[in-house]
Amino acid sequence: MANQYVDVNTLKYFLYQVHQMEDLLEKERFQDHDKEALNLYLDSVKEFADKELYPYFKEMDENPAHHKDGKIYVHEQVKTMMHKGGELGLISAGFDYEDGGMQIPLMANTAAYYILDAANNHMPGYTGLTQGAAELIIHFASQELKDTFVPKMLTGEWGGTMCLTEPQAGSSLSDIVTKATPTDEGYYKISGQKIFISGGDNQFTDNVVHLLLARIEGAPKGTKGISLFIVPKNRPTADGGLEPNDVTAVADFQKMGQKGYCTTHLGFGDKDGCRAWLVGEANKGLHYMFLMMNGARIAVGRGASGIASAAYYASLQYANERPQGRKLSSDGRKNPEEKQTLIINHPDVRRMLLLQKAVVEGSMSMVFLAAKYYDLEATATTKEEKLKYNTLLEMIIPVVKTYPSEAGIHSVNNGLQILGGYGFCSDFILQQYIRDIRISAIYEGTTGIQSQDLLGRKMTLNNGQGLQLLAEEINATLAEAKNYDNLKAYAAVMEEKLALTQKVLQHLMPHALKGDYERYLADASIFMEFFSLVLMGWCWLEIGVTAQKDLLIGSNELPEEFYEGKLETLEYFFAYELPKTTSQAEILMNPSTVTIKKEKELIH
Amino acid sequence: MANQYVDVNTLKYFLYQVHQMEDLLEKERFQDHDKEALNLYLDSVKEFADKELYPYFKEMDENPAHHKDGKIYVHEQVKTMMHKGGELGLISAGFDYEDGGMQIPLMANTAAYYILDAANNHMPGYTGLTQGAAELIIHFASQELKDTFVPKMLTGEWGGTMCLTEPQAGSSLSDIVTKATPTDEGYYKISGQKIFISGGDNQFTDNVVHLLLARIEGAPKGTKGISLFIVPKNRPTADGGLEPNDVTAVADFQKMGQKGYCTTHLGFGDKDGCRAWLVGEANKGLHYMFLMMNGARIAVGRGASGIASAAYYASLQYANERPQGRKLSSDGRKNPEEKQTLIINHPDVRRMLLLQKAVVEGSMSMVFLAAKYYDLEATATTKEEKLKYNTLLEMIIPVVKTYPSEAGIHSVNNGLQILGGYGFCSDFILQQYIRDIRISAIYEGTTGIQSQDLLGRKMTLNNGQGLQLLAEEINATLAEAKNYDNLKAYAAVMEEKLALTQKVLQHLMPHALKGDYERYLADASIFMEFFSLVLMGWCWLEIGVTAQKDLLIGSNELPEEFYEGKLETLEYFFAYELPKTTSQAEILMNPSTVTIKKEKELIH
Repeated sequence: MANQYVDVNTLKYFLYQVHQMEDLLEKERFQDHDKEALNLYLDSVKEFADKELYPYFKEMDENPAHHKDGKIYVHEQVKTMMHKGGELGLISAGFDYEDGGMQIPLMANTAAYYILDAANNHMPGYTGLTQGAAELIIHFASQELKDTFVPKMLTGEWGGTMCLTEPQAGSSLSDIVTKATPTDEGYYKISGQKIFISGGDNQFTDNVVHLLLARIEGAPKGTKGISLFIVPKNRPTADGGLEPNDVTAVADFQKMGQKGYCTTHLGFGDKDGCRAWLVGEANKGLHYMFLMMNGARIAVGRGASGIASAAYYASLQYANERPQGRKLSSDGRKNPEEKQTLIINHPDVRRMLLLQKAVVEGSMSMVFLAAKYYDLEATATTKEEKLKYNTLLEMIIPVVKTYPSEAGIHSVNNGLQILGGYGFCSDFILQQYIRDIRISAIYEGTTGIQSQDLLGRKMTLNNGQGLQLLAEEINATLAEAKNYDNLKAYAAVMEEKLALTQKVLQHLMPHALKGDYERYLADASIFMEFFSLVLMGWCWLEIGVTAQKDLLIGSNELPEEFYEGKLETLEYFFAYELPKTTSQAEILMNPSTVTIKKEKELIH
Repeated sequence: MANQYVDVNTLKYFLYQVHQMEDLLEKERFQDHDKEALNLYLDSVKEFADKELYPYFKEMDENPAHHKDGKIYVHEQVKTMMHKGGELGLISAGFDYEDGGMQIPLMANTAAYYILDAANNHMPGYTGLTQGAAELIIHFASQELKDTFVPKMLTGEWGGTMCLTEPQAGSSLSDIVTKATPTDEGYYKISGQKIFISGGDNQFTDNVVHLLLARIEGAPKGTKGISLFIVPKNRPTADGGLEPNDVTAVADFQKMGQKGYCTTHLGFGDKDGCRAWLVGEANKGLHYMFLMMNGARIAVGRGASGIASAAYYASLQYANERPQGRKLSSDGRKNPEEKQTLIINHPDVRRMLLLQKAVVEGSMSMVFLAAKYYDLEATATTKEEKLKYNTLLEMIIPVVKTYPSEAGIHSVNNGLQILGGYGFCSDFILQQYIRDIRISAIYEGTTGIQSQDLLGRKMTLNNGQGLQLLAEEINATLAEAKNYDNLKAYAAVMEEKLALTQKVLQHLMPHALKGDYERYLADASIFMEFFSLVLMGWCWLEIGVTAQKDLLIGSNELPEEFYEGKLETLEYFFAYELPKTTSQAEILMNPSTVTIKKEKELIH
């Protein structure tokens, strides 16, 4: 197939075989769905992506969303994304029946969006953020607010955004200053500026519903004084119409990538006429927002993996078509009389392709696993079960957001290298993927922030019981792997890596116990790299165990090469990626304090 | 200073203190120069770069060089670069007096171009390639050809290029098919297509002199049948004028970065009227070209390091101005009552800045070292001395080209991350540096090609005597380091790393001895990463020894913080970068053959 951007066989294999999505469908919430129905949905999404997303990918890069005369203009195809996508269920599919949804698992929804991300990463954010905004309203707002705003969001007639960042408060949400003033009419009046608002406006939806963080006058300082509001671009009038709500598209941000996905600077209440409705209780805004954060972080990991997937297939196609150079003969020379070989036959090119495949598929599997934990938490029937899956999700979520992003950047970079000089040229698509994927390491908490979360909060979650629980899951995979001769060695390596994780943590913990958190967290980003690879080792071993089983039972759903290809990529991961943890542990246990500020300033 | 892009103090410190450039000035060739005169030259280049290059950097990105109506149009400032740059000596400075040059060392010339690269990497290629083309003519062409072409190239009235790549022959020069047909008039007629020709044409020079590789009819296949020709865009007429020479600018390549530096597709002899003059002997073209290759590879490493330098200072400035977040208190919490801190105070940001500084300055030092070996080879008075410095240069050259490029990309990527969301935005400059630097890993032999050269040729050069010679140089630095208590430990680590290098090579060599070159070279790129860090460890230790000496003798040329900052960056390098070699060695000694093509195709 020309212009492949995702392997649907792998995607379905990971959903059903590796992560057993059918077990989820036994849950009451999902009982109306079966494998066939979900596959039909995924296939219709793939068809939609093939037809409506992929063909516009380059065009959206070349004609960026932009600000003109106080308005934001986006590519015309955004209209199709919102309206046809809305019809297809891309906004509503996961919601309750009573809220207009289809109650499909997040796993299935994540797989659907994975396809969209891979096809054209400039588009899924428009429906995705509308879904997120609607979700906040559904979960925390009054019935009246739900009735007013949600239905038109689910059809894509209205868009939705999240307004968090302010110029003086990027990663530091405690410094938000946007002001909400109560009125006697029940609504609040908002005044402030929000920046980096994705999908902040467009010319195709009748309205955009902003979910905005602000501080009610007199609220406590810091994160405990932040409230969540619905602030529509146009507010509904008593007669069912809409009137402007003093929300201004002040400017946009032009970017190095993802240019079709507008990033806006919005002004609220410049003319003192911006009305807002409180969601839930006052001062609980950040709490509500953070309940959505795991979903948002899964989405960023998913998007990065999707972009890396599309880049991988572009590189693979090139490597399979481009003749260049010759294989070395046994005297180490090349014979110019011989025909040139395809570059896929050069080990260095194969190494880069395997690197891409390992990152893309490993990330995909990890993203699906996170969605599965999310679904298991959401459908748990006991408190213990809920806590278990919530804990497992919390433990892996910083990695689920970060590894696909950071390793994805590295993977696409290798993909570009496979094309040589052409990779740098605009006529080839790799240069766009490399520009697009770069934002992933910044969205929804930078890698630095995720790393502080991983080491600072998650490693000590529930006094270390979180890590214990995760280790049990990993050990279950290792126990299975030991049943297969060709996987035993990998299980043994993973055991070493788990022991190494303990050793590293035992080395770092005393700093935290002494109250020296700066020192404890100084190398959190290195710990992130380390722990990511350990989790990826587990994910790949899980894939390997599943593929090995299917090979042995002679499953004939897919050609043998499919399963062998998974085992080959597992081998690559353990030979080329996982060993990096040895050095990372060495770095983490190095006594140097060179990154901690000295009295004298030496960096200049 | 606002908008710093290079630290001239560091640059001069590396030239004179670390690499003792004054010793070079004792050589007969350079005897007319002293430190003061060379510093005057460097200062005038810096002034030129401040005024004529840096201010146009963003503009050249936003208004790319382009092809229109059969012509290539470049930014107007290229005119200044060629003509004023020519006047300043940027083309001629290194050449002999008798050829119109100033006989300055390549070290000084490299330092001058480093400043230009850092100021605006879209520009130095125009004069740099003209210099390279003139150098080929001067070294290998007849006096008549020299007299005809060189003088106007040195003033920048005429440009120059290197025409190697063809559509079917990228990295594989043995597959060149451009045809040269002898005529009775002494010249040849050329017919063929060349792509990726940097600086291939422009509207500001009266002529462009192409140094082109082609195959004379009937020549042997492969690299042994390639000849070098002078092919001017316009050929000189008997009356001192110029007439068109049937060289066509067929198209240009639009790129993700370095957009102001035109990359062209040139057609030769479409109308059978393209005349060319043979340089030197027939079939020796590739040999001549490769004699220039070390210089070209130093230039690519230099350029990458220069871009990374400019990116570092942009990140540093941002980190010193941007307040965000708070330091952690001893209970691990942040106090929102406290003022936000500057992000340079966060260890994770400091780590990224130190990473940038370590890469930028380490690369700069290595590039200067390569230029020094080049100068020492060029001025050697005995055969042994010449061989020694030629060998040393050959040993490090693949790393000199590759480490600044690959680590530079990584460094700029970290620089962008320091800016968070702003880093992704076009209003901030990091996104341009990251796009510009990406080509460095591809120019003049990709990282894969350099790695094959490093492991395949250089590690076994002169039966291993090359490696021995290099080890002696490194050991001399270690011996010096052992004189200082605070450097002893680093010397010990370096000794371990040298032993590890031997171990890795002993593990790999048997494959080569068995004639299994494919296997021997399969992980050449990993070996490149490994060996690069070992050499960088040496370079940083050399810087450390020098700085430590100056601290002890209380040199007051620069503030103490300057020397301490070098020692701090040395510490960073040994704590965070060099340990990566442990894992790389593990990967290199892993028995997996997963990257070598199987009978069944498993990558899909």
